Amino acid sequence: MQTPWEHRYAQRTQRMKSSAIRELLKLAEQPGIISFGGGMPAPDVFPVEQFKEACIKVLNNNSAGALQYGSTEGYLPLREMIARHTSRYGITVNADNILITSGSQQALDLLGKVFINRGDRILVESPTYLGALQAWNAYGAEYVSVSFDDNGMVPESLEHALRFGPKFIYALPNFQNPTGITMSLERRTRLVELADRYGVPIIEDDPYGQLRYEGETLPAVEVIDSQFRGEQGCYSGNVIYLSTFSKILAPGIRLAWVIAPSEVIRKLVQAKQGADLNTSTFNQMVAYEVGHGGFLDEHAKLIRKVYRERRDVMLDSLSEHMPEGVRWTTPQGGLFLWVTLPEHLNSSEVLQEAVKEKVAFVPGHSFFPNGGGENTMRLNFSFSNPEMINEGIGRLGRVIKKVMQG
Amino acid sequence: MQTPWEHRYAQRTQRMKSSAIRELLKLAEQPGIISFGGGMPAPDVFPVEQFKEACIKVLNNNSAGALQYGSTEGYLPLREMIARHTSRYGITVNADNILITSGSQQALDLLGKVFINRGDRILVESPTYLGALQAWNAYGAEYVSVSFDDNGMVPESLEHALRFGPKFIYALPNFQNPTGITMSLERRTRLVELADRYGVPIIEDDPYGQLRYEGETLPAVEVIDSQFRGEQGCYSGNVIYLSTFSKILAPGIRLAWVIAPSEVIRKLVQAKQGADLNTSTFNQMVAYEVGHGGFLDEHAKLIRKVYRERRDVMLDSLSEHMPEGVRWTTPQGGLFLWVTLPEHLNSSEVLQEAVKEKVAFVPGHSFFPNGGGENTMRLNFSFSNPEMINEGIGRLGRVIKKVMQG
Repeated sequence: MQTPWEHRYAQRTQRMKSSAIRELLKLAEQPGIISFGGGMPAPDVFPVEQFKEACIKVLNNNSAGALQYGSTEGYLPLREMIARHTSRYGITVNADNILITSGSQQALDLLGKVFINRGDRILVESPTYLGALQAWNAYGAEYVSVSFDDNGMVPESLEHALRFGPKFIYALPNFQNPTGITMSLERRTRLVELADRYGVPIIEDDPYGQLRYEGETLPAVEVIDSQFRGEQGCYSGNVIYLSTFSKILAPGIRLAWVIAPSEVIRKLVQAKQGADLNTSTFNQMVAYEVGHGGFLDEHAKLIRKVYRERRDVMLDSLSEHMPEGVRWTTPQGGLFLWVTLPEHLNSSEVLQEAVKEKVAFVPGHSFFPNGGGENTMRLNFSFSNPEMINEGIGRLGRVIKKVMQG
Repeated sequence: MQTPWEHRYAQRTQRMKSSAIRELLKLAEQPGIISFGGGMPAPDVFPVEQFKEACIKVLNNNSAGALQYGSTEGYLPLREMIARHTSRYGITVNADNILITSGSQQALDLLGKVFINRGDRILVESPTYLGALQAWNAYGAEYVSVSFDDNGMVPESLEHALRFGPKFIYALPNFQNPTGITMSLERRTRLVELADRYGVPIIEDDPYGQLRYEGETLPAVEVIDSQFRGEQGCYSGNVIYLSTFSKILAPGIRLAWVIAPSEVIRKLVQAKQGADLNTSTFNQMVAYEVGHGGFLDEHAKLIRKVYRERRDVMLDSLSEHMPEGVRWTTPQGGLFLWVTLPEHLNSSEVLQEAVKEKVAFVPGHSFFPNGGGENTMRLNFSFSNPEMINEGIGRLGRVIKKVMQG
């Protein structure tokens, strides 16, 4: 049916595409399919009993507040809890530096709305998080991409890209989505130095920071930047930091946060007023009830134990089932690893075959802002249990061998 | 502290202002103040016990789904429930025509993202809902405003405005925010005819449709448009219709919906993927549990009873306390009425005095897209109980008398 709306779409919609990942979430709902697509936490680690208790407590004690409109900035006790949490990682912020968002995706959208003029260049890792590209495409962003190796952004490529005058740098230093790669301490320091030399600020996206399965915790770029400026643990404001409750509590409550200079928070609040007024007050109060008093730290231990095992099973299974010429990363944390096929193979074609064998993943190409990566794929190891991982990687190995033999 | 972010704001932020209403919500949190600002439902009518039961049921039966990421379109049973609800009002839609949004404010934001190019003209009532202006200012909308009387948009003014080639018409036919005025059946029909003659589609915003306290329910513009096209109760697609659970369940769960042609829904879904991935799965399941099986209709009866009384108390109290020369609307439903002071008075100045006397409202000026209305004010009658309404209107009457005496 032709309606009067189709020819009225705004110009920006030409750059909006349905996300390959979202389409895969639908695919993954088919019975019998083992999906390494998506970025879903394991339902096994959702703290269901704690949620039940918290819902009842909030509705018994403060239903008039929980079910009402709330402040756009977010529920104050939750923001204060996040401020305390942040200060333990070496930087002092207060509630004025924190905005609660409806998931990290909204933080990316609001940052785009507040900072990106059509044609602005954003410096991103290549590959980078697809959701950021999706959010910023709508505001007309262009991308300057920096090559990426096993230690993160390559400094020479970073410095070259900085000469294009990007509006800001977008970096995912811990267990990057999609590659699982962690930026080394040396590279973090170099990033801070180069950003300072070229006068370009940084957005640091850290959804998985607490999900480290081996090796030493590295300081956030935000912390290194603060030390670099000699600010002795006070928030310098040069780095906007994002994190989320999606991976340490549950994504279904859609709660994340932005740490930024209070002036930027005020601007983001104005943008959020127009975007959704406020994030669910009920969910914020429930998250506070579940999370305060040390539960988050305890719960993160459980998640790390479960996901470490799944990562190990996937790594072992890849060694067992992948043919010669296929390489993959060994992530120290997070939810993903990254597979590189021989150069002549196309992972989108592999996916078509894989779906027939009831296994799915995300072709890596989508994560490259300026093209490339046709022979790469992202695998999620958090969602499926060890048996499914073994079975799924076995299927995937057979599919790849078949495609390689042409 | 100067940070590198302030001089990097996008051009569009110049048109973002903090909403007068949101600032008032903060003001209203001060102890002792009686606020007729905001558009808040009465906490007295939140179905708290039903929410408790629903939370437990959802977490017992489907925690793995409720706490996980979900589809961007929204929870299918909830969309089907809305489709059934809609068909009772004379129009047949299915789940493909429905998108769940994080409150109606997000629906307005996504519609702006999908349809508004910088400089596009949007035809709006004057005054109109402030949240729509806030959402669309960020996309560079300009406004063609139509004058408004006690029966809604004035046809001559509407036809004049249509000649400016607006992208769409934005109308709130039932108990309009801010005036409380209802568009008559004759005017609704005229709107559909004129919109058709000039080939301009309509966005119908109907948050309060079920909150009618007297008079006969009028068909939605969407229904009239469908009949006009001879489509016998099938959705014609010319009207995009918005409604929300905020007023019939609770705003704290942030759930609303858009009814649109399925092709437009697909485009809105792409925009929503970039904006917040999906609306809280948990909240959608809880709303479904609370709302299905006829509870919403029963509950709406209670809300109407409570709000009708409050409206009547406010009307009586205005008659008793307002000085000569002050006029107000008599809304047949909704949450608001609209007060017009003598022309030489400025309601923003009245507000300054009113706050000293611990009573608040929203100056009407903010609701006019192209200026005007300095002597008007919006009063909310749903939030405060009858005693507070009497006391607050008494205070306001004294303040206005004092200001009138100069």
